[in-house]
Amino acid sequence: MPAIPGAMSYQQSGVDYHQIDPLKILAQNAATSTANNLARHGVSEVAQSRGESAYVVDCGEFYLASITECLGTKALVADAMREHTGKTYYQSLAQDTLAMAINDLITVGASPLSVHAYWATGGSDWFADEQRARDLVEGWRDACNRCGVAWGGGETPALAGVVESGRIDLAASCVGWVRPKSRLTLGQALADGDAIVVLAASGIHANGLSLARQLAKRLAKGYATELPDGALYGEALLTPTALYSPVTEALAQAGVAVHYAANITGHGWRKLMRHRADFTYRIHTLPEVPPVLKFIQEQAGLDAREAYGNLNMGAGFALYVAAADAQRTVDVAQAQGIPAWIAGRVEAGAKRVLIEPVQLTFESDDLHVRA
Amino acid sequence: MPAIPGAMSYQQSGVDYHQIDPLKILAQNAATSTANNLARHGVSEVAQSRGESAYVVDCGEFYLASITECLGTKALVADAMREHTGKTYYQSLAQDTLAMAINDLITVGASPLSVHAYWATGGSDWFADEQRARDLVEGWRDACNRCGVAWGGGETPALAGVVESGRIDLAASCVGWVRPKSRLTLGQALADGDAIVVLAASGIHANGLSLARQLAKRLAKGYATELPDGALYGEALLTPTALYSPVTEALAQAGVAVHYAANITGHGWRKLMRHRADFTYRIHTLPEVPPVLKFIQEQAGLDAREAYGNLNMGAGFALYVAAADAQRTVDVAQAQGIPAWIAGRVEAGAKRVLIEPVQLTFESDDLHVRA
Repeated sequence: MPAIPGAMSYQQSGVDYHQIDPLKILAQNAATSTANNLARHGVSEVAQSRGESAYVVDCGEFYLASITECLGTKALVADAMREHTGKTYYQSLAQDTLAMAINDLITVGASPLSVHAYWATGGSDWFADEQRARDLVEGWRDACNRCGVAWGGGETPALAGVVESGRIDLAASCVGWVRPKSRLTLGQALADGDAIVVLAASGIHANGLSLARQLAKRLAKGYATELPDGALYGEALLTPTALYSPVTEALAQAGVAVHYAANITGHGWRKLMRHRADFTYRIHTLPEVPPVLKFIQEQAGLDAREAYGNLNMGAGFALYVAAADAQRTVDVAQAQGIPAWIAGRVEAGAKRVLIEPVQLTFESDDLHVRA
Repeated sequence: MPAIPGAMSYQQSGVDYHQIDPLKILAQNAATSTANNLARHGVSEVAQSRGESAYVVDCGEFYLASITECLGTKALVADAMREHTGKTYYQSLAQDTLAMAINDLITVGASPLSVHAYWATGGSDWFADEQRARDLVEGWRDACNRCGVAWGGGETPALAGVVESGRIDLAASCVGWVRPKSRLTLGQALADGDAIVVLAASGIHANGLSLARQLAKRLAKGYATELPDGALYGEALLTPTALYSPVTEALAQAGVAVHYAANITGHGWRKLMRHRADFTYRIHTLPEVPPVLKFIQEQAGLDAREAYGNLNMGAGFALYVAAADAQRTVDVAQAQGIPAWIAGRVEAGAKRVLIEPVQLTFESDDLHVRA
């Protein structure tokens, strides 16, 4: 919880994980009970993928991986910023949405193959705005090309009465495969002494936007507030999420064996202990915090626990590799244009994340991502 | 357009396909341009699947198929009916949502393998209603079991400001494979003389709900209006969509070669000419029209063109098979508990649907599903 009087917290910003959790557990148990249905098709579930970021099915010659992910409420920022700058920002939002799905899919070691778009509007008049529609389409295509996936199709339902008038609910589903099967990264090889290589975030990505929007309401100039570097707050929020699949594909090409991978989204750095095994994740080197996140932390009065526990604070994606492969992993990532660094190491010990430079510890109990 | 004064039409009910179309064409062209991305993974797109109901990738030993589909606005009917009967109906809506995805996926000959749930709410308080949440989860699980698919995971975002407060946007993505590859049904074998076997609809399914909801507003008792068979209008609307994958799986088991398949959704019977080839689809035998659709047609004053061109009118799914296989196809479907009949035949000739019993013709121009 924030230490500063008048400071904001996650619960106040409208996201209450406690209300979602009982349903999540119910749904996870029901979902698990359907696994045996695969037997009739001659395939089987990889049970360890339950609770991970993508679902994995063993199809014999390869693993099949799939995921559906949502952008969240970031489009509300774009809609508000258009009044200030005239830009739609839907090109960026398209990349954000695909990043949500693709960056999750690749955590299991999969190459993303194809995506479907899910664009649900409050009415078909949403698409009458040609500039915005064109930006969305072109951004989607460009992000697909950057990640080497085929855009297979999509759904554009008009849902008056369900989706708010003038708004759009953006989501993406992605299918990929793990081939050769040795590329599977469900943490089976995660070990004491592994290095944690972190890929830099490009900005806030698409998590923490509820808080960011609440903050905008408290600022005299709202989204038009200038950050110390001169960027407008709203525009900085809309920097598109980095796409990490070019890095994981390049690592596979280079023969680097990834032991585990975590996409840093909701729950911030707590996600570093996503894997179900008991390890201590000791972080010794922090990244430069993106200016927009620094601004949010200061203006919303978030202490380090609140900030690192919910925002990415500059860490977009974590790769767990053998210590001997750490520098090569960094080099491969940088060659793909993604800043990266050796951030810490995996150690035998109680399950927790230690962020030494800010003297912060997240215990196992601080993260609940599976039943 | 309706022939009766004061009658309703699709455009009046808030669904305007003309506003969606330019964006659809833009998106379809952009999507098509991404196909070459698959080459780097050693796979390739099956170009004929563009514009069909599911996207198909040739993976060598098998075809991979994927789809994302949305329930639409049917949940609004459930929310309204709860006030009359106290039931949530979310068990039914779960089946509807999965049917939208699975019934589309199987049109290409795929066996559905796994699904992801997409349940976007106007706030996490939606899940605080335990009965409703439980019904949704159990209905989802049961439909998965009925179709032999694994429920791989899902996304339950709380989207205040995007999704209306108290509402839920339900969608599903589904992944399957076509194996052996000879099961692919993209119409390559569709031929003059083929029989059209139709599988019965269970009710309105999940298309035409905007019109059905508009009609409820014009009825003195709204959703509580009794149909001639004594059922309440709203409850009849909520009969869950039939799941057809048990039929297509049983047909594969029985060795029946399906030449093409069409899921009858939006555009009603116009969907019978979905395939891109030029054929005349002559229908000689109509089904019993479900009472709720008969009621809508009468009360909304829809003429046959409006009714058959937008509603399923009792036809849920069409299978195009060699004439010699027609009766066996009917028998296999009925053995799975799905009423079926030989409805007509495919003939060389101009592209159109002739529905002889109601003297109705839909010309090629009446259907636009691809760029």
